[in-house]
Amino acid sequence: MDRGAAEALDRADPLAAFRDEFDVPGGGALYMDGNSLGRPPAAVIAAVSRAVEEWRTALVGGWASWVDLPEAVGDRLGRLLGAGPGQMLVCDSTTVNLYKLASAVVADRPRRATIITEAGDFPTDRYVLQGIAEATGRRLVLLDPEPDGSSLLASLEAVLDSDTALVCLSHVHYRSARRVDPAAVTAAVHRAGGLVLWDLAHSAGAVPVDLDGWDVDLAVGCTYKYLNAGPGAPGFLYVNRKVQDRLRQPIWGWFGNADQFQMAPDYRPAPGVGSYLTGTPSVVGLQAVAAALEVIERAGVAALWEKSQRLTDLLVRLIDDLLVPIGASLASPPNAGDRGCHVSVAHPLAWPWCRALVERDRVVADFRTPDAIRLGPAPLYTRFVDCYDAVEAMREVFDEGFDTSSGRRRVT
Amino acid sequence: MDRGAAEALDRADPLAAFRDEFDVPGGGALYMDGNSLGRPPAAVIAAVSRAVEEWRTALVGGWASWVDLPEAVGDRLGRLLGAGPGQMLVCDSTTVNLYKLASAVVADRPRRATIITEAGDFPTDRYVLQGIAEATGRRLVLLDPEPDGSSLLASLEAVLDSDTALVCLSHVHYRSARRVDPAAVTAAVHRAGGLVLWDLAHSAGAVPVDLDGWDVDLAVGCTYKYLNAGPGAPGFLYVNRKVQDRLRQPIWGWFGNADQFQMAPDYRPAPGVGSYLTGTPSVVGLQAVAAALEVIERAGVAALWEKSQRLTDLLVRLIDDLLVPIGASLASPPNAGDRGCHVSVAHPLAWPWCRALVERDRVVADFRTPDAIRLGPAPLYTRFVDCYDAVEAMREVFDEGFDTSSGRRRVT
Repeated sequence: MDRGAAEALDRADPLAAFRDEFDVPGGGALYMDGNSLGRPPAAVIAAVSRAVEEWRTALVGGWASWVDLPEAVGDRLGRLLGAGPGQMLVCDSTTVNLYKLASAVVADRPRRATIITEAGDFPTDRYVLQGIAEATGRRLVLLDPEPDGSSLLASLEAVLDSDTALVCLSHVHYRSARRVDPAAVTAAVHRAGGLVLWDLAHSAGAVPVDLDGWDVDLAVGCTYKYLNAGPGAPGFLYVNRKVQDRLRQPIWGWFGNADQFQMAPDYRPAPGVGSYLTGTPSVVGLQAVAAALEVIERAGVAALWEKSQRLTDLLVRLIDDLLVPIGASLASPPNAGDRGCHVSVAHPLAWPWCRALVERDRVVADFRTPDAIRLGPAPLYTRFVDCYDAVEAMREVFDEGFDTSSGRRRVT
Repeated sequence: MDRGAAEALDRADPLAAFRDEFDVPGGGALYMDGNSLGRPPAAVIAAVSRAVEEWRTALVGGWASWVDLPEAVGDRLGRLLGAGPGQMLVCDSTTVNLYKLASAVVADRPRRATIITEAGDFPTDRYVLQGIAEATGRRLVLLDPEPDGSSLLASLEAVLDSDTALVCLSHVHYRSARRVDPAAVTAAVHRAGGLVLWDLAHSAGAVPVDLDGWDVDLAVGCTYKYLNAGPGAPGFLYVNRKVQDRLRQPIWGWFGNADQFQMAPDYRPAPGVGSYLTGTPSVVGLQAVAAALEVIERAGVAALWEKSQRLTDLLVRLIDDLLVPIGASLASPPNAGDRGCHVSVAHPLAWPWCRALVERDRVVADFRTPDAIRLGPAPLYTRFVDCYDAVEAMREVFDEGFDTSSGRRRVT
C-alpha cells in the first residue's frame, strides 16, 4: 500500500468536489475527528448569517415561520434516516431528548422494572438511564461491552424478559464503531414486550439508517458530527407514529402544548410528535441544521456510505501495515459491514501518543479512555490521502518518541 | 402631553447613543415588542460570526475553552443579577431549566405534597409544574391572578403551610407586568419551610434583580428578551450555593458529571452548580449571550432601570390621555415601582386592533389572550418619541376602524 494508491482512490471519488465546500485550510494537522465535531460547510456559515439577518429584519414576526422549524427540519432529517413525516424533531440536546424519551417509556410501563443498556455505551446515555432508574426505582442492567454486533444481540437475548421496559443502545458504538443490526435487536426486544431507543449520534450522515423499516420505536442523536451543523447545534429525536400518542414525555412546555398561543390553563399535548417539544428552540441552530442537511442531500446517503466504507477499509489496512508492528491493535470490527465511519486503534501508550500527534500539529484525533485513539474520517471532506498521511504521521511520531511519563491520563 | 415633551426626554436620555448599536431601520412599524424578542446589537451579530469562525479554525480543539462557557457566561450574567460566582449557568431552554430545578425540589421534599404557582402565570411555567405534579402525585395549588404584588403575597400567605414544597412565581408578570417583592415572598415561603423558584424572563436586563440579596433559592429565565441574545438563545438558571449540593436535578448528562471526559461508569454530579448542566451546550448561542451581556454591562443596570421606569410612565400617561377615552383600560400597575418594563392595555377589541396595528405597519405589539395588547419598550433602543408615536398610532388606527368580525382570536 503506497500513497499513490490513496491518490488513485481520491481521483476516482465521486464526492471529491464536496471538499471544496468546506474551506479546508492547507497545512496544519490532519483532521481525523469529524466524528466528534464536523467541519463547517460554506452553506452552514451562510445560513447562520441569514438567520441573524432574519432576526434583525423580521424581529418577533419571524416566529410565524420559525415556530415550524423543529418539525420541518425534523421531517427533512427523517427523509435521510428512513423516517416518514411527522415522527422526527430537531430540538434540545441529545441528552435532554434521551431523557424525555426514556422517561416516557418507563412511565408507560409501570409493571416492568428493567432498563437495559451496554456498560461501555456513551456516558451521557448511561448517566441519563441511571438517573431515571434511581428516580423511579427501576433496575439498570448493563450488558458487557461486546466486540461486535452479533454477540451483543446474543448477550441481550440472554437478559430480555417480561420485566424489560426499555433497551437503549447505540447503533454505532462511540468507541469501537461496532454497528449492530437494529432490525434484529428491535425485533428481539419487541418479542419480550419492551421498547427500544437507539442513539444515532455516530450514524446520522455516515451510515445507512432506516428507522421506519427497522420498526424502531424511539431514537435520538446529534447534528454536530457527520451532519456538520456546529458545536452544540440542536439534537434530534424520533418517535414512531405507533407509540406517539401512548407515550408522554415529562417536560411539559408551551411548545409541546396543543395550542401554544392560546395560553390555555391546562397542558394538553399537541397531536403527534409535536408533544415531544419543550421550550423555545434555537432558531440559529435550526437554520444551521437545515443548511447542513442540504449538503448531505446533494451528496446522497448511499454515496456517503460507500465512501465511508472505503475510508475506514483503507485505515484498517494502514493500521495493519504500519501500527500493528509497533504494538497497536485494531479496536474496531475488521469488516466495514460491521462498523460505522470511524476506526479505533488500541495501544498502551495511546494517551501520550495521541497528545503528541496534536501537539506536533500532525493529526487531530480523539483519545478515548483507557487506551484508544479514534480516527474519524468524514466522507464529505476527508480524502483517502488524508487517511494515508494520518496513519503514516502516527507511525512517524511513535518512532520519533514522545514523553510517556504522563501515562494513561484523561484527554482534556 | 405633546410630542415635543417626548423629544425633550430623548435629548436628556443618557442611554440614547446605545440605539446606534442596534441598526434600527428607518420607517416601518414601531417595534414595541422588545419584551418578546429583543433586537440584535451589532456586538451580538459580530459574536455569532466570530463563533462560527472559531468553529472553522479551532474545530474540535475549540472545546478546550467552549466547555467552560455555560459557567463563565453564567457568572457574568450573575454579576448583573446579584448572584455571586458559581451559582448561575447559561444552558438549555427556560422550560428545561425550570423542569430541572422544580423536579429537584420535589424530589428533595418527599413529605411535602404541595406546589404553588399563579393561575395566570406564563403557560410554560404552569405546564411544567402540572407535569411534575402529575408524575409525582403532588398537588398543584393555583393562586388567583392578582393585580399587584402585595395582594399576591397576601394570597400566597393564606395557602402556605407545612405541606408546601415549592413556590414558583414570575418576578415580573408576562401579561400585566406586575412586579412582586421577591425578598418578602421568599421569606414567607422559607418560614413555611418551602423553597422558591423565580422566573426572571421579563426581569433580566430591564429591572433590578438581587438574587443573593433576596435570599432566593432558585431562578430561571431567558436571554432573548431584554438581553437581546437572539431567538431561542440559551436560557439561564440560578441555584443558591446553600442548596446546590442538597438538590439533585433529574437529567444526568455528561456535562453535569464530575469528570466529563473520564467517561466513568457511574454518574457522579459535578461539584457546585456544574451538576445542573445536562448535554452539549450551544456554542454559538453562548457566544451571543456573552456579547449581549457586554452591551448591558456598558449601559449599567441602574441606568436601564431608570429609563425603563420613565418609558413605561410615559406610556401610562399616553394611554390615559389617548386610549382610556376610547374604552381601553390600563391592565398593568399604575406605579413604576410595582411593575416591570412593559405595559398592557385591555380593550374588548384588543385582538383585531392589535392585528390591524401590525398589518398596517404601524406598531408591532403582542396580543395576549383574552383582551390585552402589550407594549414592551426596551431601554437600550426604544426612544420616548417611539412610545409617543406608538400610542398615537394606536389611537389613529382605532379611529380609522378595522374589521372586528374576527373578534377575540388567538394571535398567530
